[in-house]
Amino acid sequence: MPSDGLLGMAKDIWRGEAPVSGLPSRIAVSLREKVEAGSLPAGFKFPAEATLAKQIGVSRPTLREAIRILAEERVLEVRHGVGTFVAAPAVRPLRDPLETQQSLSALLRAAGMVPSSRDLSIELVSAPSSICTELGVNEGRPIARVSRTRLADGVPLAVNYEYLVRGTPETDLSLLSLFDGSSLYSFLAEKIDLTLVQSRVIIGAVAANADHAQRLRLRKGSPLLLMRQTQFDLAGKPVLYTMSYQNSQIIEFTSIRFGCRYDR
Amino acid sequence: MPSDGLLGMAKDIWRGEAPVSGLPSRIAVSLREKVEAGSLPAGFKFPAEATLAKQIGVSRPTLREAIRILAEERVLEVRHGVGTFVAAPAVRPLRDPLETQQSLSALLRAAGMVPSSRDLSIELVSAPSSICTELGVNEGRPIARVSRTRLADGVPLAVNYEYLVRGTPETDLSLLSLFDGSSLYSFLAEKIDLTLVQSRVIIGAVAANADHAQRLRLRKGSPLLLMRQTQFDLAGKPVLYTMSYQNSQIIEFTSIRFGCRYDR
Repeated sequence: MPSDGLLGMAKDIWRGEAPVSGLPSRIAVSLREKVEAGSLPAGFKFPAEATLAKQIGVSRPTLREAIRILAEERVLEVRHGVGTFVAAPAVRPLRDPLETQQSLSALLRAAGMVPSSRDLSIELVSAPSSICTELGVNEGRPIARVSRTRLADGVPLAVNYEYLVRGTPETDLSLLSLFDGSSLYSFLAEKIDLTLVQSRVIIGAVAANADHAQRLRLRKGSPLLLMRQTQFDLAGKPVLYTMSYQNSQIIEFTSIRFGCRYDR
Repeated sequence: MPSDGLLGMAKDIWRGEAPVSGLPSRIAVSLREKVEAGSLPAGFKFPAEATLAKQIGVSRPTLREAIRILAEERVLEVRHGVGTFVAAPAVRPLRDPLETQQSLSALLRAAGMVPSSRDLSIELVSAPSSICTELGVNEGRPIARVSRTRLADGVPLAVNYEYLVRGTPETDLSLLSLFDGSSLYSFLAEKIDLTLVQSRVIIGAVAANADHAQRLRLRKGSPLLLMRQTQFDLAGKPVLYTMSYQNSQIIEFTSIRFGCRYDR
């Protein structure tokens, strides 16, 4: 038990001259240093609040605030009714900029990671009416769909469903049957000369269903980012619709926003 | 029991001439019509799959595919181990465009909704180190923070934490003490002549903790959209940092993306 990592904390904390209002953050700084130095390893369970507060020599509310700060930073993990633990080292999430469109493969390569796919399936399906509307086809018309799990350095990152409307359902299916599961954008551009130039994207959050949880190695109900994207060709025709369920622990979206419209 | 709403379905489905590959979507169309017409009301529980498949006269996989389509459209709700139900009427989510920055109040007013706030609290806090870094202040420096729950037509929509670094912690706190909880952007522009011109935003998804779940009237663990936003003044100085935990059932983000970079 490395709980001797906690010894000497009181000394560290009281050494400085900071005002009392900064005490929780001084405790947080001291605890973070111990975690970063490895003297409190990942998974380490802290003593009960009352014990720990006494050990460090601070009030329970002060300690609680320090723990809240570190939990927000994901340095500690508070499992209610179980205890407070040193969190597993944070994976710095991948950031996908929303201003420009890029394939997940390109995003991963740029981050020095190796993209791969599994569970590849290419078939004709009945798409939900909302997707038929987005792609400008009659409801009930079968649509060729590629579905697969995308991985980054072997870790499952996203479950993707991509609906293509280029020719007839049958010609679309036969084109896609040549797809090997790597970069779909690259395949579309190079094999069928389909250039996508713009997309309309909607970002939401959903709870993982059993299938997605299993494919992403998460618990059922885990929060996923859901990206729905309608992609347009050079003629402005919607040709590809993507639903991508992404592991929110390892990816997030970024954007720059301009102006500041407010309610007068 | 309005299960007589299911009677005549077999007739409706078999009336047309669609190919067998379109059968699941024909069942889906027929079921959706019954839901929309109100003959299958919200909360209606379907018979077990085997019974229902027999009643309609289709195979179980075909029925399952039809249910999958309608569940994806949120017309039906499948509660595993419980049954399949007609979902509550969908609330069309609010859409917040990411290209431009606007106050939540302005977004709600534009959608014809009335914004309000509760649980307003204005205090000096120790911010997580990541927020200190974003706002360019030393770790441990207290920051004036506004926290509150935002509502749309009385329905809780978001829990917001807004950190302001304009003057000293004390002058920032004393400025904010005049804030009434309505539009913070409007308050900053009109009371302290602070114009925000640009922001950097990160969108992620997290599970609701107990406090946020209670404030948003959701179950603990529900998927929330987490928006983290650093806002810059005319001089390009970061002055406001927002963490906003949003109910993903009633809000989503949109953007237009250009180009299509792919991995060759």
